[in-house]
Amino acid sequence: MTLTALALVCTLKPSPQESSTELIASQVLESLAKHGVTGSSVRVVDHDVKPGVDKDMGDGDAWPGIRQQVVDADILVLATPTWMGHAASVAHRVLERLDAEITEGTLAGKVAVAAVVGNEDGAHAISAEVFQALNDVGFSIPANGVVYWNGEAMGKVDYKDLPKSPDSVAETIETVGINAAHLAGLLSASGYPKA
Amino acid sequence: MTLTALALVCTLKPSPQESSTELIASQVLESLAKHGVTGSSVRVVDHDVKPGVDKDMGDGDAWPGIRQQVVDADILVLATPTWMGHAASVAHRVLERLDAEITEGTLAGKVAVAAVVGNEDGAHAISAEVFQALNDVGFSIPANGVVYWNGEAMGKVDYKDLPKSPDSVAETIETVGINAAHLAGLLSASGYPKA
Amino acid sequence: MTLTALALVCTLKPSPQESSTELIASQVLESLAKHGVTGSSVRVVDHDVKPGVDKDMGDGDAWPGIRQQVVDADILVLATPTWMGHAASVAHRVLERLDAEITEGTLAGKVAVAAVVGNEDGAHAISAEVFQALNDVGFSIPANGVVYWNGEAMGKVDYKDLPKSPDSVAETIETVGINAAHLAGLLSASGYPKA
Amino acid sequence: MTLTALALVCTLKPSPQESSTELIASQVLESLAKHGVTGSSVRVVDHDVKPGVDKDMGDGDAWPGIRQQVVDADILVLATPTWMGHAASVAHRVLERLDAEITEGTLAGKVAVAAVVGNEDGAHAISAEVFQALNDVGFSIPANGVVYWNGEAMGKVDYKDLPKSPDSVAETIETVGINAAHLAGLLSASGYPKA
Repeated sequence: MTLTALALVCTLKPSPQESSTELIASQVLESLAKHGVTGSSVRVVDHDVKPGVDKDMGDGDAWPGIRQQVVDADILVLATPTWMGHAASVAHRVLERLDAEITEGTLAGKVAVAAVVGNEDGAHAISAEVFQALNDVGFSIPANGVVYWNGEAMGKVDYKDLPKSPDSVAETIETVGINAAHLAGLLSASGYPKA
Repeated sequence: MTLTALALVCTLKPSPQESSTELIASQVLESLAKHGVTGSSVRVVDHDVKPGVDKDMGDGDAWPGIRQQVVDADILVLATPTWMGHAASVAHRVLERLDAEITEGTLAGKVAVAAVVGNEDGAHAISAEVFQALNDVGFSIPANGVVYWNGEAMGKVDYKDLPKSPDSVAETIETVGINAAHLAGLLSASGYPKA
Repeated sequence: MTLTALALVCTLKPSPQESSTELIASQVLESLAKHGVTGSSVRVVDHDVKPGVDKDMGDGDAWPGIRQQVVDADILVLATPTWMGHAASVAHRVLERLDAEITEGTLAGKVAVAAVVGNEDGAHAISAEVFQALNDVGFSIPANGVVYWNGEAMGKVDYKDLPKSPDSVAETIETVGINAAHLAGLLSASGYPKA
Repeated sequence: MTLTALALVCTLKPSPQESSTELIASQVLESLAKHGVTGSSVRVVDHDVKPGVDKDMGDGDAWPGIRQQVVDADILVLATPTWMGHAASVAHRVLERLDAEITEGTLAGKVAVAAVVGNEDGAHAISAEVFQALNDVGFSIPANGVVYWNGEAMGKVDYKDLPKSPDSVAETIETVGINAAHLAGLLSASGYPKA
């Protein structure tokens, strides 16, 4: 059985603008593909995801379609830029919408990883928040479940404008891919027992 | 000279739904009014604030109008609910939009306070994030610059459904009001020198 | 093969003082025991764990002995009280000392969960920080990998002084135990491949 | 009347080891001195500050002596390194000990700023936590109340080993000094009214 991954790309920039977040998310999906995981990606800001904490907020809400893709995938890649040292509002919107899944129980046995980029400082706090929120709704986090890049303090360079991914980032992307695929394989074959 | 305050209410619920966040924001404005501060309030989710980090994202962006009210006020009250232990996506959207003011320098000498409500745990982390982001863009934070209420762990009660504000919350609202008004008065009369 | 768990109890109170953190840690170990996991516990503040980020800081450093117990166990239960909305300094000391294990690679395949208590607000942010730090050094986090209790905003009641654990807390302890045991069993039988 | 500042240097390294945290704290004190503020500094790890949340934990506790210096100063500079993306355990110990001052009310009218260094990412989250905790106990935070430096993601360079402070850091140190001195002057002349 093939494992599948969905990347939710939480850049503030609508398509077709270039996005560092999109880039690192695609690199994580490529890494997962080496381990047999079929991936796809949604740039969330291109869709009208309504504020709220229900599964479907009605009135043209685009979340139900995205939600179904989350529910159908074995692995979630939550990719976000860093603004003011925080995850993007779009990422917070996604986490809020996933809140409804606590009572649904739809996410048990799924694996989540994070990918964070920014001109400067913020990634550790962002992966902390992302891990906690995704774990609360039922995702498991594999060892070393985040890849991040940010420049030096008060830097202005974007990840997408680097000549190439720094070696430490490229190696971490490989680790994230192999670990997420391994854990998703284990949990897919043997899910958590009911408490 | 009269001081003014603007409350940005970051509930996920559009008007006219009842909102705990709106309630606590209005209580902070009432407290400020006792110290001569004229207040007004915007429920941000009722407006189409676009994602992005420029002053004006164009295309019907409602931020420029709200931004002008922030720039015109002496005191900002940032009021947010707690979801997943985090500030609402609407609050993060506001902070992102304020990012542009670092280079504008429009917020120097202004004072900010936070108001946070939630069924359960999250307020300290939210006030931390809010203080840091608002301070980065130029706001000063008066002593005890936050009022918050949340129920016991895994609680489900809303602030608006309490029979009345707990005494500790009511007292804190008075402190936040007097301290914010005092600091705004000082900084209004004697702003920061240029570095 | 029997799985083992170690609880690092990060209360600020030396033995034999009563500790809410010790209590909730012992409840998590009892839950794990129902699933065949043998547990033990260390109250860290009783030992002279030196500041630093090396495996052994010398000069009577008690960390090497505790570290060996972490390395020998399949599951780590990091239990901490909440002070100022943050994890205790003792918990931060433990995380700092575990930093050395990134290069050692000793923690791959191990599972970590958190237990957090406090008079009031802070648990979500603490589990976020704990998850991120423990995940960075190699631990995997099972679904719903935290149990927490805190009272209402500005509350003063201790967990140990409740007549009994609230149902929601007791149920979460069962979930944490079953999920941690299950994940540790899977990873013990089939560890992460080398990247 | 001369204003005074106290820097609490929360490096993990005892004297006489070189410390990036000590360096940036001394630079903030120099900046304050240009605006007439007399400064002094304590390297906290050199002293036996006991765990706990009382003013004096007895048994050789070094906190009462440090506490008196905090109470005597107009400005607190909380300087901490970054470990695992978090403030050092020594900084958390200081914040815990300041918790007792909420009921003492000794810190009203005082000003606090933060200084954060690290090889890599963490400064925004650390200043957030530091602002929130210090504000909770009574400190006011001047505009742009933090200076920080960290290298690129997964970097290994120390601030003290840079050929010189980057311009953006040096400019921020000037801003922090002028703003903290200005706000402390205002609050020293006209403290918060009683609520």
